[in-house]
Amino acid sequence: MNRGEVHVEQSSAAQESFRAVEWRDGALQLLDQRLLPQREEYLTLKTAPDVAQAIHDMAVRGAPAIGIAAAYGVVLAARAAWQRAGNGWREAIEADLAHLAAARPTAVNLRWAIKRMRGRFNAIQGEPEAALLAEARAIHDEDRAANFKMARLGAGWLPPDAAVLTHCNAGALATGGYGTALGVIRAAHARGALKAVYVNETRPWLQGARLTAWELLRDGIPVTLLADAAAAHLMATRGIDCVIVGADRIAANGDTANKIGTYMLALSARAHGVKFMVVAPGSTFDLSLDSGRDIPVEARDAAEVLRHGGRPVAAAGATAWNPVFDVTPAGLIDVIVTEKGLIERPDAARVAAVIGG
Amino acid sequence: MNRGEVHVEQSSAAQESFRAVEWRDGALQLLDQRLLPQREEYLTLKTAPDVAQAIHDMAVRGAPAIGIAAAYGVVLAARAAWQRAGNGWREAIEADLAHLAAARPTAVNLRWAIKRMRGRFNAIQGEPEAALLAEARAIHDEDRAANFKMARLGAGWLPPDAAVLTHCNAGALATGGYGTALGVIRAAHARGALKAVYVNETRPWLQGARLTAWELLRDGIPVTLLADAAAAHLMATRGIDCVIVGADRIAANGDTANKIGTYMLALSARAHGVKFMVVAPGSTFDLSLDSGRDIPVEARDAAEVLRHGGRPVAAAGATAWNPVFDVTPAGLIDVIVTEKGLIERPDAARVAAVIGG
Repeated sequence: MNRGEVHVEQSSAAQESFRAVEWRDGALQLLDQRLLPQREEYLTLKTAPDVAQAIHDMAVRGAPAIGIAAAYGVVLAARAAWQRAGNGWREAIEADLAHLAAARPTAVNLRWAIKRMRGRFNAIQGEPEAALLAEARAIHDEDRAANFKMARLGAGWLPPDAAVLTHCNAGALATGGYGTALGVIRAAHARGALKAVYVNETRPWLQGARLTAWELLRDGIPVTLLADAAAAHLMATRGIDCVIVGADRIAANGDTANKIGTYMLALSARAHGVKFMVVAPGSTFDLSLDSGRDIPVEARDAAEVLRHGGRPVAAAGATAWNPVFDVTPAGLIDVIVTEKGLIERPDAARVAAVIGG
Repeated sequence: MNRGEVHVEQSSAAQESFRAVEWRDGALQLLDQRLLPQREEYLTLKTAPDVAQAIHDMAVRGAPAIGIAAAYGVVLAARAAWQRAGNGWREAIEADLAHLAAARPTAVNLRWAIKRMRGRFNAIQGEPEAALLAEARAIHDEDRAANFKMARLGAGWLPPDAAVLTHCNAGALATGGYGTALGVIRAAHARGALKAVYVNETRPWLQGARLTAWELLRDGIPVTLLADAAAAHLMATRGIDCVIVGADRIAANGDTANKIGTYMLALSARAHGVKFMVVAPGSTFDLSLDSGRDIPVEARDAAEVLRHGGRPVAAAGATAWNPVFDVTPAGLIDVIVTEKGLIERPDAARVAAVIGG
């Protein structure tokens, strides 16, 4: 075990002071991300419709965390279906599954997790909760393990003494535990391999300012926030070695949907010779889509743009367009880090070689 | 007079419902832009230090408006110097002039206006206020006239039925009256030549959401706001014909300093074949600088990024980098519209041919 791996485990222990998604006392407990960083409050959810609502309202967000929450949501759906219909639970559960699957459209992990949970249905005898809870816990544990693997691989790919820039929150709050993009940053920081960590504030929801700054500072990693539109100026004047982001869905050719602004960041990175790294587990790949053209991009309420920090800011009568994801063409990506290996200069063949398909 | 010109004048009359900068009853009256759009309140300033403070604090902002406000500030400085020192006013005024010139570093119009006002000093006999007020009014009137000229030229350059995107506020609030970038948009709208007007919200100060939306909606021009980082996705998915922005300082080779985010927008525009137009009067050119490398870029308080409306939005302990301008290389600009003519594909020779030098 090399020095970097030791540090990854230490750092992992250090940041266990919160769990964004946790099964506890027969219910799903979520750290309510709408209230951070001002308030650290947990929601306790006992029904699948409540889980769907929490996903829709972004009490939990981040593609892997959404998938994990949905898996636990299936457990709650099965409990209710068993109570209502006994051995007819497999039919009775369908409405809740459809509800969960429709909670948000872009992150494929949501439907991936439901599909994987459904794959257990046929083998279950009698009351389904225990078997399905074991499967949901497996999804959760595997995601955490994948995070650690990606963190090691990604940190190893970075140049020494790197200045990095991240967007949105692809951290412990967005995953089963350690983070994708922030897992790489945590591991690189633990190795002493980072010169600076810049974080885009990430309008309109301010995931960077509210969530990424919160969780990295909690781990003792200094961060400097900036307005999203300052990123190109940062690259031009201060020097950035690598942009590191997560992903919500990756098509078979490597085109990557991620938080709105990622594409503009990738264009700027390319113009400045800055490396562009995407960090995402296998569950984020959607090999049924040839390219990013077919990824559905969620548009959310205009109020998210017209308000700031919960208060109205825009001129009365103004409308807003609020797409919350965009698609970065594979050609702008230098490497996709997965738990199955690195995909450098991604294209369909290289994605297939690592992810299968 | 063609149809477009008629409409420009009508539209001009329509938007005279506010004056961002006005000399009234022996004092400088400023519409306090920090309070818009929630409150429409005017400041009445009777001393040059108060004008310098208002410029520094962004009660008035926008390069041409800053220049005009500073010109009126020189009038107030001269009044005070005459009261203190009589015929020794030319020496007594210097501290106030230095104070005004230092209020903000990037917009060259500020120092341009002070220099032009200073150019009148030697010819003045006795009490200086009347002669300097006439000069300040001339600066103001010429800026308004330049706005109308640029609006016609710029609107004529746009393709028919154009979808346009603007950043920050280069409107009536930022100039002597009609606006630079927004003057072009007003004139094109009046000609029925616009399909859509998109406006970046423009973090951190939200000039787009607060000011541009406010003044365009007041003129009956529909606007759609978006998060700054959504601009590339807008270009990729909805189609934009032209980005139209103002400028704070333009070097001799056409490199243009403007609101932070302009450079990233120009990179995105070039990647999508979207035209990029800068609209700025001659007073914004600084021919003493060979290139944009030498333009001082103001960094403001991190609190503008970390807080909003007096409330913290970022995680406690986070720091922020807050450069409020950036420099767009001339090579990314398709046309600079000035009152002296269009500068297409700007470079040093083409700038010199139109602006002199």
